[in-house]
Amino acid sequence: MADDSSQAIITFEPDGKAITAAQGERLLDVATRADVAIPSECGGQGTCGRCEVILHDGVAWDVQAEEQVAAGPGTPLRVLACQTTVVGDLRVEVPTAPRRRGLVVLTAAPLPDRVQQTFLEAEPPAALARRCRVSLSLPSKTDSLPDLSRLARALEASCAGPARFDISLPVLRKLPGLLRANDFSLDVTVADAGTHHHIAELGPPSQGGTVGAAVDLGTSTVVVYLIDLHEQTGIAIEASHNAQRRYGDDVISRIAWAEEHPQGTATLQQVALDTINGLIERAAASQGMQTSDIIAVTCAGNTTMMNYFLGIPAGPVRKTPHVPPAGAAPVYSAQTIGVEVAPYAPVYVSPAIAGFVGGDISAGILATGMAMSEETSVLVDLGTNGEVVVGNRDWMVCASCSAGPAFEGVGIRDATFAVRGAVQGYDYDAQTDTATVATIEDAPPVGICGSGMIEALASLVENEVIDRAGQIQMDFPSDRVRETDEETEVVLIRQGEAGAERDICLRQPDIENLIRSKAAVYAGLSILLRNLGLTTDDVQHIYLAGGFGNSLKVERAVAIGMLPDLPLERIHFVGNSSLAGASLALLSRRARDELVRIAEATTYQELAVEAAFADEFIASMFLPHTDISRFPSVVA
Amino acid sequence: MADDSSQAIITFEPDGKAITAAQGERLLDVATRADVAIPSECGGQGTCGRCEVILHDGVAWDVQAEEQVAAGPGTPLRVLACQTTVVGDLRVEVPTAPRRRGLVVLTAAPLPDRVQQTFLEAEPPAALARRCRVSLSLPSKTDSLPDLSRLARALEASCAGPARFDISLPVLRKLPGLLRANDFSLDVTVADAGTHHHIAELGPPSQGGTVGAAVDLGTSTVVVYLIDLHEQTGIAIEASHNAQRRYGDDVISRIAWAEEHPQGTATLQQVALDTINGLIERAAASQGMQTSDIIAVTCAGNTTMMNYFLGIPAGPVRKTPHVPPAGAAPVYSAQTIGVEVAPYAPVYVSPAIAGFVGGDISAGILATGMAMSEETSVLVDLGTNGEVVVGNRDWMVCASCSAGPAFEGVGIRDATFAVRGAVQGYDYDAQTDTATVATIEDAPPVGICGSGMIEALASLVENEVIDRAGQIQMDFPSDRVRETDEETEVVLIRQGEAGAERDICLRQPDIENLIRSKAAVYAGLSILLRNLGLTTDDVQHIYLAGGFGNSLKVERAVAIGMLPDLPLERIHFVGNSSLAGASLALLSRRARDELVRIAEATTYQELAVEAAFADEFIASMFLPHTDISRFPSVVA
Repeated sequence: MADDSSQAIITFEPDGKAITAAQGERLLDVATRADVAIPSECGGQGTCGRCEVILHDGVAWDVQAEEQVAAGPGTPLRVLACQTTVVGDLRVEVPTAPRRRGLVVLTAAPLPDRVQQTFLEAEPPAALARRCRVSLSLPSKTDSLPDLSRLARALEASCAGPARFDISLPVLRKLPGLLRANDFSLDVTVADAGTHHHIAELGPPSQGGTVGAAVDLGTSTVVVYLIDLHEQTGIAIEASHNAQRRYGDDVISRIAWAEEHPQGTATLQQVALDTINGLIERAAASQGMQTSDIIAVTCAGNTTMMNYFLGIPAGPVRKTPHVPPAGAAPVYSAQTIGVEVAPYAPVYVSPAIAGFVGGDISAGILATGMAMSEETSVLVDLGTNGEVVVGNRDWMVCASCSAGPAFEGVGIRDATFAVRGAVQGYDYDAQTDTATVATIEDAPPVGICGSGMIEALASLVENEVIDRAGQIQMDFPSDRVRETDEETEVVLIRQGEAGAERDICLRQPDIENLIRSKAAVYAGLSILLRNLGLTTDDVQHIYLAGGFGNSLKVERAVAIGMLPDLPLERIHFVGNSSLAGASLALLSRRARDELVRIAEATTYQELAVEAAFADEFIASMFLPHTDISRFPSVVA
Repeated sequence: MADDSSQAIITFEPDGKAITAAQGERLLDVATRADVAIPSECGGQGTCGRCEVILHDGVAWDVQAEEQVAAGPGTPLRVLACQTTVVGDLRVEVPTAPRRRGLVVLTAAPLPDRVQQTFLEAEPPAALARRCRVSLSLPSKTDSLPDLSRLARALEASCAGPARFDISLPVLRKLPGLLRANDFSLDVTVADAGTHHHIAELGPPSQGGTVGAAVDLGTSTVVVYLIDLHEQTGIAIEASHNAQRRYGDDVISRIAWAEEHPQGTATLQQVALDTINGLIERAAASQGMQTSDIIAVTCAGNTTMMNYFLGIPAGPVRKTPHVPPAGAAPVYSAQTIGVEVAPYAPVYVSPAIAGFVGGDISAGILATGMAMSEETSVLVDLGTNGEVVVGNRDWMVCASCSAGPAFEGVGIRDATFAVRGAVQGYDYDAQTDTATVATIEDAPPVGICGSGMIEALASLVENEVIDRAGQIQMDFPSDRVRETDEETEVVLIRQGEAGAERDICLRQPDIENLIRSKAAVYAGLSILLRNLGLTTDDVQHIYLAGGFGNSLKVERAVAIGMLPDLPLERIHFVGNSSLAGASLALLSRRARDELVRIAEATTYQELAVEAAFADEFIASMFLPHTDISRFPSVVA
């Protein structure tokens, strides 16, 4: 105790800052004076729970309980800084969990500042589901409001703002008992159901975290990303092949399979759910979490994937005019759909634009920020299908290119996902016959992922290991070029090189697959721009998206003729923008609203019917292009 | 065929009106010219299905199918008059189903004109669920809107007006297949979910009717009323005791039972549902309907009944400050609650005002129109509890009187529901020792219902068969007064009198029960008026409600001191106003909105704690009252 009995010394750990405080001063205010950052979202109402600190060695006053509380060595005490006032000297630990806002999508580039600011830093961002601590006033003769109305009133005041609420009947049935067993204080999980709020779950006050899952449901690859909804930080990521692949490599063959088999739609749904649920389980286990701790899910995928995810027959997508059964869908509970997280968790599906341009592209448009910009930008998404979007905040046009899944590794023998050890950067020096390899997390190379394929292709053609048509040059003076029983191949990384446990190769058919994919994308973009009366000079930014690495030297994508030859500062590799958009949707109501606007405002153009597209595709089956004059930087 | 080949003669049956029409003229327009009333709600868009007529003997043109259709003797053809044009002579039958608007609540007085006009005649009234015929434009390359958005667009245009829709996942899964199997025309059942519309069911176009069920869930008595939602007419009514009675006569004892037994709440819910489901089954069977034809349900009951109906523990109602767990509840599906009608049918529960003033009273306030009037009115509802409301469109105050269920027949040996043969009017002439009896549907008397009890009590005291304290006068010179082994009784109707198969009596304890009930109601009203600083002269209208007959001579209610002695033209017997309000809620969105307003705007006063109430109750245990000066008309 300080000498002056009305003054106490408060020490904040781990900073070690000490400051004098008056008896009765709130710890939150003391921290503010001391310039110690303690988060608070409820304005010190005691409802958000974010200002929790740990008391050591000292006594304090608990405002809510109206009693003195004490902490001693070995018996620390967790309290809310806004509900605790100074009695005497005190050592206060401020938890060091990362408090910085900023969504870090583990396998992608950071979000543009503008996107980050608009959707995450605006207050309140309104996650798809939130857990709110509410303390209801006790009923009295002068305030005998029904329990349900009393809960809604408290939620409006402390957590969700004025809005209509609904509640499922099983949860409503628990309300009277839970209120009275917990002195009218509850943790309420509130889901954003679009038209209204949904009281998804009720429970006693607890200190549990709130985690959501963003899902990128690709035709070939599925990624699950767990995000701490409070901290807005990624906490785990898992990827795998989509087990639906056994029913066809592309959406058309899967739809055909589903239509030919009884229960075909239900089967495809269950297989997709099995993949997703397995990834969720793995991601949760990696953090020692239960899957039931996950209280919200968003999913972005192409139109066919999204409909099968919900168990909706996707047949109409296959036939002209390729109508999506559902473009946007209501928010359903995880239990209704079959996602194995908290059963009441709301599941939001990113809205589709057209039959062949899905919610993954809406999500990508959202994450790049191109729909908010005055400048005209291009999004190239190199998923299984390959989609191209051109536009700005006033107009958006998109097309699908049938690029195939080569850059996702499908049909590429030594491919891998963008996981630890994936080769994402590659450079070959013919002078020394050595390869420079960059892998994810700098681990020994285990296989090559999409960005590595682009860089390898560019490097091989530059060093004339392959010619401009993609043919492996058998007379190239290195044993990296070789012929096996089956085909010719180039050994990108020899066993032992950079720690590789085995040879990592590109085979002749691999290279041809990759060239077809890049040609389709380039042709699609060229025709779309031409149809709009634009040239590449009108394009201020190109965003190259794909779930195939954390980094890419974008000049290599130009070198192989995947992207037009623009100044490099205009070309941005944005990684898995579908997952980034799904993550934004998980965290921000404004992002969900913007997704709906994007899906409605974006016009679809069908390229497949245009003869010019076929011509341009053929002309693009070269590295970089038959018309080399379009690629002056490559010539140079 | 008429001589002039461009003119045809159209004959409308059953009127027999004939008129010439030009080739190509729409039948709906021909009918209008002929002054034959054919209903239409969609402005001739072919969507509402209401203008269906039956063609006999002739050919016509089907506008939608773009083909000629023919009817011949024995092969009539149902067509929409707005989608059929004249080709040649034609005999057209206009279905004679009653088309007149106007809800006829079978066991109650007609609704006040103002109520009828406000809630039913305003267009569109918007029933709780509607079945809409929608014909979607076919998808094309220039209009490849998703199926779900296409459906929402069509619903907005033809049926529901602009609004947000949601749809359950099982129903959404059916959408793509149903659309394509039915040329993009469907019957859509749309439920009003409060904050938004809910697409409850989809099916092929059909000619099925749309029926709803209004339920009055009383502590003692349950009534189910089936209503044609299109015609706004009642089609069947059934009543029975609430099987919950085996767990206690009043709500307090049932709550106590539920709290003392595991699964107590679930048991009380199931027993109430069994009663309701049995009545629905009987009512539907009486019309040759399936219960699955019922697409919407409303339920009005006191706060305890409503919470148990939903399976919500009602415990807090029993303890001070008597808080309702749920006052208003969201709309849930019949399947969720356990009501055995169409599983998707929305179930709307009339919102409660307080723990002891429930949704039955909100419904009664709605049905009387008192909350829309500038004049100050009183509602006295003589259910098991006995509630009193005083107010006008600016303020409403209510109280509960613990009147007991005597006028509902509980504890009255020869009582019956207000069914065929129930004695609802009674007059005794001591001069001739004869009884004049009025029964429901003029059938032979089977027992006495509430309105008959009031009239009998008044007649017995007037003829001095009983004294003003309710004591049977054993020296009364008629063998109608007799003493059995158990007690004294008055034979109201002798066996054979008016066709009665047995004696119908009032026993001394019956009379005492009735006096206690009427005294509680009168005392409640007196104290409530006094607390408000009003006298009976300030009351412009008294509405006496109760499910106890189709008619009542209201001066008899004054004569026994149940109601204050006001000019008779101010006193209205309104029958089962809870059921009438539930019926309005079934038919009209505006009525549902008004119910919410009423529940929120009405203030509850607790009378039980007032010593003055006990005093007034004792003083009222007389026929009409100890202070006879309050009843000058009775003295006269």
